[in-house]
Amino acid sequence: MSATLGIGIIGCGNISTTYFELAPLFCGMDVRACADLNTEAARASAGKYGVAAQSIDDLLANSAVDIVVNLTVPEAHAGVTAAALEAGKHVYSEKPLALSLDDGLALKALADAKGLSVCSAPDTFLGGAHQWARRLIDEGRLGTITSGTAHVMSHGMEHWHPNPDFFFKPGAGPVLDIGPYYIANLIHLIGPVRRVAALANSAEAVRTIGSEPRRGEKIAVETPTNIHALLEFESGATVTLGASWDVWAHRHRNMELYGTEGSLFVPDPNFFGGTVELSGRDGGLSVPQPFDHPFGVPNQDHGGTALANYRGAGLADMAKAIREGGGARCSLDRALHAVDVMTGILRSAEAGTFVVMQTRCTRPDPLGPDQARALLKD
Amino acid sequence: MSATLGIGIIGCGNISTTYFELAPLFCGMDVRACADLNTEAARASAGKYGVAAQSIDDLLANSAVDIVVNLTVPEAHAGVTAAALEAGKHVYSEKPLALSLDDGLALKALADAKGLSVCSAPDTFLGGAHQWARRLIDEGRLGTITSGTAHVMSHGMEHWHPNPDFFFKPGAGPVLDIGPYYIANLIHLIGPVRRVAALANSAEAVRTIGSEPRRGEKIAVETPTNIHALLEFESGATVTLGASWDVWAHRHRNMELYGTEGSLFVPDPNFFGGTVELSGRDGGLSVPQPFDHPFGVPNQDHGGTALANYRGAGLADMAKAIREGGGARCSLDRALHAVDVMTGILRSAEAGTFVVMQTRCTRPDPLGPDQARALLKD
Repeated sequence: MSATLGIGIIGCGNISTTYFELAPLFCGMDVRACADLNTEAARASAGKYGVAAQSIDDLLANSAVDIVVNLTVPEAHAGVTAAALEAGKHVYSEKPLALSLDDGLALKALADAKGLSVCSAPDTFLGGAHQWARRLIDEGRLGTITSGTAHVMSHGMEHWHPNPDFFFKPGAGPVLDIGPYYIANLIHLIGPVRRVAALANSAEAVRTIGSEPRRGEKIAVETPTNIHALLEFESGATVTLGASWDVWAHRHRNMELYGTEGSLFVPDPNFFGGTVELSGRDGGLSVPQPFDHPFGVPNQDHGGTALANYRGAGLADMAKAIREGGGARCSLDRALHAVDVMTGILRSAEAGTFVVMQTRCTRPDPLGPDQARALLKD
Repeated sequence: MSATLGIGIIGCGNISTTYFELAPLFCGMDVRACADLNTEAARASAGKYGVAAQSIDDLLANSAVDIVVNLTVPEAHAGVTAAALEAGKHVYSEKPLALSLDDGLALKALADAKGLSVCSAPDTFLGGAHQWARRLIDEGRLGTITSGTAHVMSHGMEHWHPNPDFFFKPGAGPVLDIGPYYIANLIHLIGPVRRVAALANSAEAVRTIGSEPRRGEKIAVETPTNIHALLEFESGATVTLGASWDVWAHRHRNMELYGTEGSLFVPDPNFFGGTVELSGRDGGLSVPQPFDHPFGVPNQDHGGTALANYRGAGLADMAKAIREGGGARCSLDRALHAVDVMTGILRSAEAGTFVVMQTRCTRPDPLGPDQARALLKD
């Protein structure tokens, strides 16, 4: 196999821009082709980023493509990933891996049968802030983590997104849409989940679009928009997750972890950077020693704020694992476990029962500063 | 019946000071006697506050006592309340009313059979801050409350209490010890609970006393010290309750309520005063118009901080209801429902199932500024 793996992107919508623009940061991979059901979108991306526009079938048959990056809409994730595996390609999928555990398990069986790798976003837990948190945990600064809280609450999404309908349909909602960032980071920091319980409701049966160009149109809400969940980890730690698009204002931090020796405050798992805060037994918060991690260095302007964005790091880590052997951090097993947790939360809320996980996984290896630098081009 | 009801206090420990000192604020009641298994303690209180020291039996037989205030340790609450009812006395009990729902239901049956009133602390929800929150909710400033969070987390209690053992035994723990303040206020603001689910653990199997005079002694932990619970209210609102003595530092507000029109930030339900904050749909927080409530006016110095403490307000409200008819706000039905919720949380955590409440209650009537003034002496 060549030292550089060929990437083919399927799905040239909004998120593809991030992959096209950030992929050149990383070594050992090269975006070579793109495809979309909307051939105009594929052609536009191809022209802008200097790659080949192809039909989906042609991309899947393209021998220069080793890894298909699946950036389709969530409902299409499992189907497109399966088709790519059937075509003999490794796959890196946007989150969530699948909308049901059964679909995810079928992908695993197929990948195993074909001897191919499947990995999945999010890779934000590889960010400087989250690896900093991981380092502090691994150093024992928290002692044993016994508990924690995670909150991702807003009044979304119809106020800003041009086509917000899909957010309110089964397969999205705050758990499957935003939850993956939080669940992936919790697995990264604490490990796999044993069981969950949840309550869910919706503040409104109908949402009114506030964004252009469809301002004033109505959307029927077909999935819960407000979820409170309890997660019990295999380690014994218990964490609440509040995920809501029904909250006008709140004052919760994104993630707080409580240990026998102190508390850790982790910034938004939806981003790579941010400030980690730590307390010891005296309860006083401070910012621990700086952590010289390349994936915490701001590299984008985000409306006047400098932002660290290294989306693609998980793909680069996957390409390295394929080239050199070893496990990928955004692995199929972890993505599958996250699907198990997220769909378990929704099932618990529907059935009014605790739901025991059917899958398990290990924590990913940490990605220290040197390992992160090794993923970047010189 | 006399226009002034006679009060007899059973239990002259730490909390009795508050009742002895604050009872004279309120009209229509008069502390006339006190008793304690420790006759020295009863005699000391009697001398200090100018009431009669009696044996428990004599106090229960004292015709000048209309209401027994039960300030015994939690394990003794139900038994002492039953004995007082048998002696023909109304009872106001410190929280919790009972340590099991069965004990609480038996008290209700006995009170009904005897035609006597039982009420129970906490009465902090009658405080100015919480009545302010109630007014804002009743005015529709939140629209429909759909969700919320409540957090009471610390690293307690062995660092400050001289005899902290009881905190770590069944019947205490953060849910039964501190939970009553939060549950009572949630019932006051939202209404009764339909079902609960919870996870519980303990960071340490043994706690080491850090306070004098027993510094260094060990306490076996016999009840969970860290609980995350989900509460679904009959209204459909869903609220998480985090109650823990295993947290060195956290950044949660005491109580946040989310509605279809805004969010409300309620201060610590363990106190009468504090600042209420409110947002509308714009998400911007502000302090709503001042609320001229007498139970929000600071009346105590608390280590340099001015504190509003009107403990006894619930007892005065009970005395008024006995004298004039009508329902008492700290009623048996509400206290019983709180016991149902709290013991349901512990049962859910133990069994790994959702627990449906066996009792229900109504919200207490609000206690507006004029109604509160009517409870105070001129």
